[in-house]
Amino acid sequence: MEVAQILCMNKGGGETSYARNSSLQSKIISDSKRITEEAVESLIITFSNNNDTTSVISIADLGCSSGPNTLLLVSDTLNLIYSKCKRLTYPLPEVQVFLNDLFSNDFNYIFGSLPEFHRRLVVENGGEVGPCFISGVPGTFYGRLFPKKSLNFVHSSSSLHWLSTVPEGLLEGEEKRRMNKGKLYISPTSPRSVLEAYGRQFKSDFWKFIKSRSEEMVSGGRMVLSLMGRKSIDPTTPDSCHHWELLAQALTTLASQGLVEENKIDSFNAPYYAPCMEEVKEEIEKEGSFMIERFEAFEVEWDGFASEDENGLKILTRGQRVAKTIRAVVETMLESHFGGHIMDALFQHYGTIVQHYLSNNRTKYTNLVVSFVKK
Amino acid sequence: MEVAQILCMNKGGGETSYARNSSLQSKIISDSKRITEEAVESLIITFSNNNDTTSVISIADLGCSSGPNTLLLVSDTLNLIYSKCKRLTYPLPEVQVFLNDLFSNDFNYIFGSLPEFHRRLVVENGGEVGPCFISGVPGTFYGRLFPKKSLNFVHSSSSLHWLSTVPEGLLEGEEKRRMNKGKLYISPTSPRSVLEAYGRQFKSDFWKFIKSRSEEMVSGGRMVLSLMGRKSIDPTTPDSCHHWELLAQALTTLASQGLVEENKIDSFNAPYYAPCMEEVKEEIEKEGSFMIERFEAFEVEWDGFASEDENGLKILTRGQRVAKTIRAVVETMLESHFGGHIMDALFQHYGTIVQHYLSNNRTKYTNLVVSFVKK
Repeated sequence: MEVAQILCMNKGGGETSYARNSSLQSKIISDSKRITEEAVESLIITFSNNNDTTSVISIADLGCSSGPNTLLLVSDTLNLIYSKCKRLTYPLPEVQVFLNDLFSNDFNYIFGSLPEFHRRLVVENGGEVGPCFISGVPGTFYGRLFPKKSLNFVHSSSSLHWLSTVPEGLLEGEEKRRMNKGKLYISPTSPRSVLEAYGRQFKSDFWKFIKSRSEEMVSGGRMVLSLMGRKSIDPTTPDSCHHWELLAQALTTLASQGLVEENKIDSFNAPYYAPCMEEVKEEIEKEGSFMIERFEAFEVEWDGFASEDENGLKILTRGQRVAKTIRAVVETMLESHFGGHIMDALFQHYGTIVQHYLSNNRTKYTNLVVSFVKK
Repeated sequence: MEVAQILCMNKGGGETSYARNSSLQSKIISDSKRITEEAVESLIITFSNNNDTTSVISIADLGCSSGPNTLLLVSDTLNLIYSKCKRLTYPLPEVQVFLNDLFSNDFNYIFGSLPEFHRRLVVENGGEVGPCFISGVPGTFYGRLFPKKSLNFVHSSSSLHWLSTVPEGLLEGEEKRRMNKGKLYISPTSPRSVLEAYGRQFKSDFWKFIKSRSEEMVSGGRMVLSLMGRKSIDPTTPDSCHHWELLAQALTTLASQGLVEENKIDSFNAPYYAPCMEEVKEEIEKEGSFMIERFEAFEVEWDGFASEDENGLKILTRGQRVAKTIRAVVETMLESHFGGHIMDALFQHYGTIVQHYLSNNRTKYTNLVVSFVKK
């Protein structure tokens, strides 16, 4: 099945929904905020140097999802544009905002929250806001989404580690699909061919992303990308793959209880890749239209440092919080392969395994943030 | 309650849905097709005269709704652009399409149908299509929706006869709300003050629409508007209001059976207005940014000349078809005022009254189509 159909955060506002379990992604946006701010400030300066202060600023958030984080970037960026312009006594520009995600994303939910969003924006800026036009753009960002030379600022957070497809080398024929027996993603025990297939797929996808944006962005435009990655060149380090390793363990336990067929585990490979900085840099340089301004890696706790349970109902263990965060993101995908009936058991057991693991290990995610300017 | 919250075509794909009862609106689009085609052809010629054939064409469909008609205009327009450009040996332009409707519109339904739409577009044009980027823009068209000077072609069909609000003069105080006793809209027995309140509201709304579009459109851009209207200056002629008159009759029957409170009928006034050509012209000329190229009025049968029941289940009477068409459009609005429990009885009775009326009268709707160019 196509990734575009099964990569879909848990909908609605219930216990297992993405809307109620996305504090990790919110933490990541807030950690990258300094770099995003720097990029937006540079953008406004470029704008003013071009005597272009009467023009329209076009912003795109790619992989915006549908929940409390969706409008976070937009609201931060607009507030920054307004305050910066006021400080520099520039006229407030018209801003066009494009929110992108896959066709299956719940855009109705986002659109329903826009009247309240606009009201809040006016209040936060003491009534001094410029015209702001928000639209939804469905489709994959691994291809063109916008007209040529139409965007000034592109942002994407917690999305680009999702591949457009399960790596091609792992799809063809029963034999190849079993290359990664008992695993869901790259593991320290995976054969080299699996590592290479994942690396190739990431490079191909990421190049398509950069190439499409280079056509869509104006010269001097800025882009900030934030995605899961790893510190080492070795793709089997725990920061990039151990959460998948433990999910495979949980599934294997369910298989031993007869709840899951073992060959179902063998034939599942996540359309995910956590690249290292070098891999990201290489594709950007190969494409050639962008100049990297900043590239940072920072650590994020597996539960995003949630100080309290965001459902406000009961205090959960860290393991349970991690399980809920992961479930909100991958459940649709796992359901379509393993069936929905095992989900409760799977994530309950996963929570226990993760809790045990985190008691003895200090593994964190590595998040990469890269900021660049269109030549 | 705000019109933006209750003006919403019946959702889903069931028996009473707008998706299955919108052949009248489809007929209107097809009747206006010649004028739309003429406008798009002129647009391409303007484009080529400006040596602008490498640019992007921006199209907006305002009040696009969510059903089989939503992408009809887009698909007709794109096919026309492609065939015209090929005939003139111009390069195929990039086209950006904005689909607009109120916040409550079902954009998820539209977005879900886009992959199939793109596939069909490619087939219909023998593989020769340019890049086409479709997005959804929620909000009222009685205000700005797009950045300044960003649109080349604006289209709106079967939408502009909906006012932004119930006419102000009819809202204030119990006494004023009863001015139109027993009626839902302008009627031959309505006092002059009711006629004037409706006329004023239309003028105010339509002026805001034209003013907003004049800011958003580029010079030389084209606009085609198609809306319910009337032939005579007198707003009480049957072509503009008799379908409301009969709906009031049906409600009055229900009131006599104790199913509806009479004062509920008195206090309901539809946020609707069917203008005459002179009223439309006057506002366009007063605003001053557009030049009218064509203005036509044509008659449409109340059931849109549906040759057969589009549900394909059983042959309905004309009265029943009209009742289903009207129900799909106004049910949400009536429900919020009268309650959902009377809807089946109301529209069944309405169908009978309409059938009787049409057996003895030749009343048709008048649809106005105006095409203009931005100076």
